[in-house]
Amino acid sequence: MIEIITIGDELLCGRTQDTNAGMIARELHTAGFTVARITTTGDTRDAISAALLSCLRETRFVIVTGGLGPTEDDLTAEAAAAAFGDTLALHPEAFAMLQRWLKRRNRTINPSQQKQTILPSTCTPIANPVGTACGFIMRHHGRHYLFMPGVPAEARAITEQFVLAYINEHSGRKHIIRSKTLRVFGLWESVIQEKLTNALNPDADVSLGFYPHFPEVLLRLTAHGPAAAVLDERLERARNAIVERIGEHIYAEGDESLAACVGKLLADGGTSLAVAESCTGGLLSHLITSVPGSSAWFERGLVVYSNASKTQLAGVEETILARHGAVSAATAQALAQGVRSCAGSTIGVGITGIAGPGGGTQEKPVGTVFFAIAGPDGCSVHQRCFSGTRDQIKTLSAFTALDLLRRTLLGLNIDGQGNFL
Amino acid sequence: MIEIITIGDELLCGRTQDTNAGMIARELHTAGFTVARITTTGDTRDAISAALLSCLRETRFVIVTGGLGPTEDDLTAEAAAAAFGDTLALHPEAFAMLQRWLKRRNRTINPSQQKQTILPSTCTPIANPVGTACGFIMRHHGRHYLFMPGVPAEARAITEQFVLAYINEHSGRKHIIRSKTLRVFGLWESVIQEKLTNALNPDADVSLGFYPHFPEVLLRLTAHGPAAAVLDERLERARNAIVERIGEHIYAEGDESLAACVGKLLADGGTSLAVAESCTGGLLSHLITSVPGSSAWFERGLVVYSNASKTQLAGVEETILARHGAVSAATAQALAQGVRSCAGSTIGVGITGIAGPGGGTQEKPVGTVFFAIAGPDGCSVHQRCFSGTRDQIKTLSAFTALDLLRRTLLGLNIDGQGNFL
Repeated sequence: MIEIITIGDELLCGRTQDTNAGMIARELHTAGFTVARITTTGDTRDAISAALLSCLRETRFVIVTGGLGPTEDDLTAEAAAAAFGDTLALHPEAFAMLQRWLKRRNRTINPSQQKQTILPSTCTPIANPVGTACGFIMRHHGRHYLFMPGVPAEARAITEQFVLAYINEHSGRKHIIRSKTLRVFGLWESVIQEKLTNALNPDADVSLGFYPHFPEVLLRLTAHGPAAAVLDERLERARNAIVERIGEHIYAEGDESLAACVGKLLADGGTSLAVAESCTGGLLSHLITSVPGSSAWFERGLVVYSNASKTQLAGVEETILARHGAVSAATAQALAQGVRSCAGSTIGVGITGIAGPGGGTQEKPVGTVFFAIAGPDGCSVHQRCFSGTRDQIKTLSAFTALDLLRRTLLGLNIDGQGNFL
Repeated sequence: MIEIITIGDELLCGRTQDTNAGMIARELHTAGFTVARITTTGDTRDAISAALLSCLRETRFVIVTGGLGPTEDDLTAEAAAAAFGDTLALHPEAFAMLQRWLKRRNRTINPSQQKQTILPSTCTPIANPVGTACGFIMRHHGRHYLFMPGVPAEARAITEQFVLAYINEHSGRKHIIRSKTLRVFGLWESVIQEKLTNALNPDADVSLGFYPHFPEVLLRLTAHGPAAAVLDERLERARNAIVERIGEHIYAEGDESLAACVGKLLADGGTSLAVAESCTGGLLSHLITSVPGSSAWFERGLVVYSNASKTQLAGVEETILARHGAVSAATAQALAQGVRSCAGSTIGVGITGIAGPGGGTQEKPVGTVFFAIAGPDGCSVHQRCFSGTRDQIKTLSAFTALDLLRRTLLGLNIDGQGNFL
């Protein structure tokens, strides 16, 4: 088992966000190792010593960052020596390493750099490819303690160039980890959980994690074992079992955003898009244009906030607004058809609704949104009712529009989209 | 002493960066409390129980986030019951709380939501203002354990609205804390630090914290002591010292967003706004319409991605596009004047630029953006060159447009805006 300890008062008062622990954890996870615990402690010698000595019983590797700099509050080497019954001394190997590092840069050693070579006498130094503070290894009660500076670039370089190989060599391990991410929109976490009850064969030895990422949910399948081919086959079977239950809600695998997925479908089909949005206020256009290269398929967006703009820009007839209201199926349809026609695009999307907090009525409460997708084969109109804050309703509406586009382009059943029930 | 425990396999494998611990630590530090240790542990019952039971001897408050969701791998309540010799049961108070929460949103309880009300029988529930999973408090061996969901928005809301006051009340502390937030746009953190060197009298006993919140920086002034009036006076003096140095870059105090600040200026002046944006792709309109009631001053937005849309919608002459290019001062000006004229609004804003990653040239590299503000007194045009990712350049551009509007409406010097140098 592996633990990470990060040291620094600036982490405990929230002034600096600790990114080292996450970086090391990610590198180790990708390499197939599991981190059991991360501890952040303060700068005092006692706190550091206590953290070093209170590892979990099964821990074999402890990765420590921080407190190796040249200033007086850098006490990690002193604390390690105290914890493990060692003494500090100028370490000849570390000193020679530092001299070589400086010489390559035509610099000479100064007193505060020299302090960084005063290390526990029994340690083994670790070269720092990008800075003057070297790391070091200590062994205690069968554990390997690997100490690194807290400067993120230095911690990263030492992790990549030394720590991973060291742990791999000393772990005697045989197995690896493979994982797969499925991206879901349109169902809340609790509903997915219900739909996937007993979907995975417990003997299949694949674990399933849920990661809500509003308004989406990411599903992560993970398998451990000795042979990559076996794991990939297990993951594929687990993936298929999930796709069988909620396949149409899975818009992509891996890192692809919903807007990128829609962009790819549009680009592949040589299809162009224009949108006229009211309650989403530009967010749909923003998501679409967040994808690099989107000018290839996105022609224009109209943010038709006033009634005059709906009429002038998208040609929505005043009689429609008067008879059905600006928030209505008829207006959504007129917006989609109007923007498609004025832009000369293959597809037009219209959105109109009430994002709140004001503007709701008994008949059309806050969260009521109408969507229309107009294309060469006609126009479909859809109504949803969301709950949440103004920002949440805007976000749910923009993502719903993207998902309606995805379903339309793929020929999927749109009524199956669900309404976050 | 206070400890924080964050729970989640996704934190230990580095897939999710833990921001809750830092957020809680920062809030506590600002309120004058010290966090002694942060521990991150995995999702298993044993790991959670072990973490709860291995606090430091002097710890009186333990804040725990994560593992309170509806799925099978949310085991924190179970682990807490096991660790403290309690049993799980449907908690009537939590259940009633959830019912009320859902009723206000016209939703009914589903089985997995109901699971979230199965809590240790001796706990006291904590209301969650923004989600369905409630928090809870347990007492054990003289310690207070405060459990919260791991969803960052929920953890933040419960920390701000409950945890700080709870710890203040139960810590037996006598003094109070007052703070004030100043919101800055247009200067990076390091530049603000330089400009504010020695601005605060060290005897004034007011601490100044920097919280970068891309693309803005929040400055937080905090004072501790027994008497509110004295603290408020100290804060006011410190605030004035800062305003003297960087006043024009401070757009608001407290929670007001830049878009809300601009909205207020527009509403106060009975001024209406329309925008034509190219490289920001709808983000400017989205920010403007994120402010409740923005339909009172926002008339329309044009997302003029294609050249045809620039010409058709905003009346940009083809000769301007041909002679100066779509990314030019002339095009920005034509967009601002065109959208102002077609919308009949008091002010028109035009933005055109290169968000990247492609599309840059030697002469107009990625990040080059032109802004124009057209009003009754004419049109001003401004060029900026940003660096960053596509999303960062879009964000910097949209915020810069809002800040140009703010400066124009207030009659401030626009050249003083700075260019993030």
